[in-house]
Amino acid sequence: MTSASLSETSNVDNIAINRLSQQFLLEYPKDAANVLEAYPLEEMALLLAEQSTATLVRIWSFFPPHIADQLLPLLESRAQKNLLLVMDTPDCAQTLNRLSKEDKQRCLENLPEDYANDLQKLLEYPERTAGQMLDPRVIRLLPDNTADDALRLLRKQKHKPIRKVFIVDADQQLQGIVDITALALSEGDEKLQQLALPPRALISPFDSLDEVADKLTQFKLDILPVIDINGKLLGAIQHPSLLRTLQDNSLTDIQAMVGVSREERALSKAWFAIKKRLPWMEINLVTAFAAASVVALFEDTIAKFTALAVLLPVVAGQSGNAGAQAQAVTIRGLALKEITVRNWLRVLLKEIKIGVVNGIAIALTTAIGVYIWSGSIGLSLVITIAMIISMVMAGMAGAVVPIVLTKLGQDPAQSSSIILTTITDIAGFMSFLGIATLLSALL
Amino acid sequence: MTSASLSETSNVDNIAINRLSQQFLLEYPKDAANVLEAYPLEEMALLLAEQSTATLVRIWSFFPPHIADQLLPLLESRAQKNLLLVMDTPDCAQTLNRLSKEDKQRCLENLPEDYANDLQKLLEYPERTAGQMLDPRVIRLLPDNTADDALRLLRKQKHKPIRKVFIVDADQQLQGIVDITALALSEGDEKLQQLALPPRALISPFDSLDEVADKLTQFKLDILPVIDINGKLLGAIQHPSLLRTLQDNSLTDIQAMVGVSREERALSKAWFAIKKRLPWMEINLVTAFAAASVVALFEDTIAKFTALAVLLPVVAGQSGNAGAQAQAVTIRGLALKEITVRNWLRVLLKEIKIGVVNGIAIALTTAIGVYIWSGSIGLSLVITIAMIISMVMAGMAGAVVPIVLTKLGQDPAQSSSIILTTITDIAGFMSFLGIATLLSALL
Repeated sequence: MTSASLSETSNVDNIAINRLSQQFLLEYPKDAANVLEAYPLEEMALLLAEQSTATLVRIWSFFPPHIADQLLPLLESRAQKNLLLVMDTPDCAQTLNRLSKEDKQRCLENLPEDYANDLQKLLEYPERTAGQMLDPRVIRLLPDNTADDALRLLRKQKHKPIRKVFIVDADQQLQGIVDITALALSEGDEKLQQLALPPRALISPFDSLDEVADKLTQFKLDILPVIDINGKLLGAIQHPSLLRTLQDNSLTDIQAMVGVSREERALSKAWFAIKKRLPWMEINLVTAFAAASVVALFEDTIAKFTALAVLLPVVAGQSGNAGAQAQAVTIRGLALKEITVRNWLRVLLKEIKIGVVNGIAIALTTAIGVYIWSGSIGLSLVITIAMIISMVMAGMAGAVVPIVLTKLGQDPAQSSSIILTTITDIAGFMSFLGIATLLSALL
Repeated sequence: MTSASLSETSNVDNIAINRLSQQFLLEYPKDAANVLEAYPLEEMALLLAEQSTATLVRIWSFFPPHIADQLLPLLESRAQKNLLLVMDTPDCAQTLNRLSKEDKQRCLENLPEDYANDLQKLLEYPERTAGQMLDPRVIRLLPDNTADDALRLLRKQKHKPIRKVFIVDADQQLQGIVDITALALSEGDEKLQQLALPPRALISPFDSLDEVADKLTQFKLDILPVIDINGKLLGAIQHPSLLRTLQDNSLTDIQAMVGVSREERALSKAWFAIKKRLPWMEINLVTAFAAASVVALFEDTIAKFTALAVLLPVVAGQSGNAGAQAQAVTIRGLALKEITVRNWLRVLLKEIKIGVVNGIAIALTTAIGVYIWSGSIGLSLVITIAMIISMVMAGMAGAVVPIVLTKLGQDPAQSSSIILTTITDIAGFMSFLGIATLLSALL
């Protein structure tokens, strides 16, 4: 930025500050965020740096993530530091994770050393694990401390609603948990070990977020202690940020199914998307050639009856959709642990039933359509039989592919649509062109 | 069940009880649930009814939902009642919602009238709204009540960790919220109105679960008050059950995309699945015929060059996958509100860039494959051009379809795969067969 444009910016700032008075910024942070979004990022950064931390934090929460992520590195260092310190530790870590390596480093250097070290540890855990979501800043007390000791400590952190006090021994081994309700109802001199309850569930930092969700929902917890392999308390996972993470985690299944990286976002750089998507497109190409080679087997039949080429997409489209339906239900069932691999037979039988009934229904409609178009009873018969066979096979494949991927220890969503489409295409082409060849006397 | 099989059942029970001693059931509820699952439902119900409520509740939490749902109506009425009373109100309502109408009615009659009425109200809210998730049993106190009054009330409900006390006036209008931390740190005679903070966010019972999630994550809340249009406090939404619901809500997007009801589960009855999936399959059939009619336009070209029929699935498969990739990222971005409808141009430009780069890369690989297979430079050229065009169009369609559905006030996931496949098929067929016809001199 040149000095000329800087002074221009300051003018715009003054006007902007007049219009969006401090009062407005604090009381209508959502509207303020909306107005500000129209300004260039540098101007937003300058304007925001002049606000009180309270105002800054409130407005910040209304920026869409892609704006917030671009804005953070541009903020003046005091404002940046205050903002990062107010965030929950895991939120802060996740925010830093989305920045470029240099920006991340600069933000970390701007923070108190202790806290930067805590963050650095979180950033080192693998993606989508409990470690990335843990807050190391939990209240730790000794078993001999009293309820009054705990309350004194809470008084110091009055701005934060604390839910649990963790009781650890001198080696940081977790001994028990005291709920704030128990603390509120206790006598002041009661020892914490009398108020503590054993943890109902624990988690390791390397466990997946799905396991975190399972334990939190299974045991109806609002906080889950994280311990290392030696039983040392590392911190705890709390709800608010997890809610969005888990929701997002499920949404990334849709991406993984079609060969998009779970990390890609709607406004990610095109280049990032290209690099991650292309390998799966190339794999998809190989599978598409495999399906095409089935068609090639029947080139002679197609040369005689080009109507078959016209109807090929109908058979493939229907079996593809039937398979995708079965697959969607199975992936959800597996993700929510409503089914496990050992339920495979029940799921398979259900999909066979659906395939038969829907297959017959769709085959009849198709037969009518094909008869009207071609006037050929033979062609209608061929597509009827092929449609039923391919829809049953597609339903079976839709159920089996995610289950087999799970059984093999793979992510059941990863590229499952690419695998499934290959199967449904081949099943559709093989049954349709195979039956057409067998019954070619009728065509 | 005949009396002969009943006495047989009792024998099995005795053996089972001996093996799974009370101690085992209480201390290893997860293993107990696993062992029990192998028994017939009636026997499980008899065995469970004999356990203490504490044991029953612990084991129950480890049954997969489809087992729990079948088992609940079979439980002896005292056990059933105790179990339902221990659940959170919204959990209880959701459980009842999954039962048959008769079973639901029988369970409700078995509960205290007051509570049954509360549940009935929850059951009347539309699916996937805040109303179904609200817990009406929150602690309500008047502004003039003291901290000691609140603590006395909490003492009575010691088993439940209470987080917030809601301050309402005589008309049940919400005046403020007192956090338990503030209560713990207060002087006993302090008035609640001095400790209360205004609610940072509110929600109506008819708002969607996505809005609930947005508010909870936006404001970092662990509890969200629900008020009616007159400002009357209806209850509050708390995290634990919401976590699973939101995760599930995102997973149902995968089902909705391919025309499966959001209500269908992996172990739903086949008949339910058939009824809900068939209409979308029929719609998909119509769209498949539309795509086929494009192929029919070029029947003469195909009759001359059957290799085109062989390669059709390759072009359609690649553009289908490219479109699905763009669509997955866009649906996620919309669901998480990372993008809104007004970002359409940015998302579209990104997908055009990706389509061009990946299109060229894939087209070159395809050209090599096709040249090896056919030895025809003309055919390789045709598929190269067609692949680039169709992949760019597919990427654009993948981004635009969910955005347009959102703009029209529709669910961006609903049947979006069916719509998208139609577009990508037509784009693929049209570009490939069209260019082949134009350049037929080269084939």
